[in-house]
Amino acid sequence: MYTICYTKSMNNYKITVQYNGKNYSGWQIQDGKDTIEGRLSIAIKAVTGKDIKVVGSGRTDAGVSAIAQVANFLLDADWDCQKLIKAINAHLPNDIAVLDVQLAEEDFNARFSAKTKTYNYYFYVSSERNPILDQFALQVKYAEIFNMQSACKYLIGTKDYKSFVARNSGKTDFTRTIYSAEINQVKDNLYVFEICGNGFLYNMVRIIMGTLISVGEGKITPIDIQNIIKSKDRTKAGKTVPAVGLMLKCVSYK
Amino acid sequence: MYTICYTKSMNNYKITVQYNGKNYSGWQIQDGKDTIEGRLSIAIKAVTGKDIKVVGSGRTDAGVSAIAQVANFLLDADWDCQKLIKAINAHLPNDIAVLDVQLAEEDFNARFSAKTKTYNYYFYVSSERNPILDQFALQVKYAEIFNMQSACKYLIGTKDYKSFVARNSGKTDFTRTIYSAEINQVKDNLYVFEICGNGFLYNMVRIIMGTLISVGEGKITPIDIQNIIKSKDRTKAGKTVPAVGLMLKCVSYK
Repeated sequence: MYTICYTKSMNNYKITVQYNGKNYSGWQIQDGKDTIEGRLSIAIKAVTGKDIKVVGSGRTDAGVSAIAQVANFLLDADWDCQKLIKAINAHLPNDIAVLDVQLAEEDFNARFSAKTKTYNYYFYVSSERNPILDQFALQVKYAEIFNMQSACKYLIGTKDYKSFVARNSGKTDFTRTIYSAEINQVKDNLYVFEICGNGFLYNMVRIIMGTLISVGEGKITPIDIQNIIKSKDRTKAGKTVPAVGLMLKCVSYK
Repeated sequence: MYTICYTKSMNNYKITVQYNGKNYSGWQIQDGKDTIEGRLSIAIKAVTGKDIKVVGSGRTDAGVSAIAQVANFLLDADWDCQKLIKAINAHLPNDIAVLDVQLAEEDFNARFSAKTKTYNYYFYVSSERNPILDQFALQVKYAEIFNMQSACKYLIGTKDYKSFVARNSGKTDFTRTIYSAEINQVKDNLYVFEICGNGFLYNMVRIIMGTLISVGEGKITPIDIQNIIKSKDRTKAGKTVPAVGLMLKCVSYK
């Protein structure tokens, strides 16, 4: 006589999600608010019949979009990944879509396993509104792009970025590592600021962008970025630019 | 004794307009419809107090956008061009903006003086919806871009393009000259089809794009484009793709 014992562990699905955040109160589920996490949970429940917790790589703020946000969820059912993409997408609104589903290792956690995040901020330079670009980019009336590009190098490194955090962040550790920061021309008067780091503080990318715009406008010089970081004083940095141009581009894992 | 005689002619203002056409019933004024020409006329009246006729380089269809549409209007008042831009824009909704105003020659007519028009059609290749790109580009689930690019050369020349016109166009002369046609990668999976010609028939760019997509999908070969043009038969060409990806890029004058 013998007994066969086995434990069926939960399947851990890693999903890649793209969304236009314009009409949402950000990623995180909040009572009475329409959120990306909320919409995904509803769609996954509609497909699987289960109440599951979707773990995102991080929260994106109200109005912020994502080209490839990563999340994961545990499910005690076997689903073919390709079928799961189609099934979930059928229950999502047009401005949210699952691009990919993969079966991940048991211990994969979209938040804690994340190594780097890359954000893009799109802006265009024009004295007049450009209604087509306004859909996903910020208007900057005047900018010396070369100076903004020069300023980027001062952002790189492991530093205390307290100057670039919203005052109500609730954090006490402001040290992060920025691996790269650059501004590239996309097409004509459209540019993108791309920044990659091991993590970002609340509103950090938007405050950095506002500060780079001050450089572009000639209000401060590129090297002033160094002094602003050293000051650890939010009031020395530029404005928090609107969410419209901000997109989480990708999240990398080991 | 002598008499000084002079005739103050009207000022002819040439304007460049950008719009996101999504929420409009096209360029041309129509009763009870919200149109770009209608909105411009209202704004110019609010500024100048005059009922003026705005002449566009051509009509764009419902939902079609323009990066730089050109129009002109006559005005019996002297306005500084820069002030006119700001004043008109203050009376336009966010999805329409005047980018430039120039004083033109008396005989300039945005429609009849136009030499070439260039249209862009944006599309992206992905098995899943991309909500960010969906704002201004068409999803194509699968496409051999190289074959689409090869097909473009058969579009160029002075030809009878009857195969590429909507059946209700009301036209009898289908001969147009296409100066260039190409497909370029914008970024990642996003592509743009750019076509420049001396004029375009009703729905022509959208039917050509639909036919190129048939090439990309492998339903027809690049050289079939030649046979489709020769057939002068709309049913041989591809589908009329949606307005979403279409933008009037620019209009050139002598």
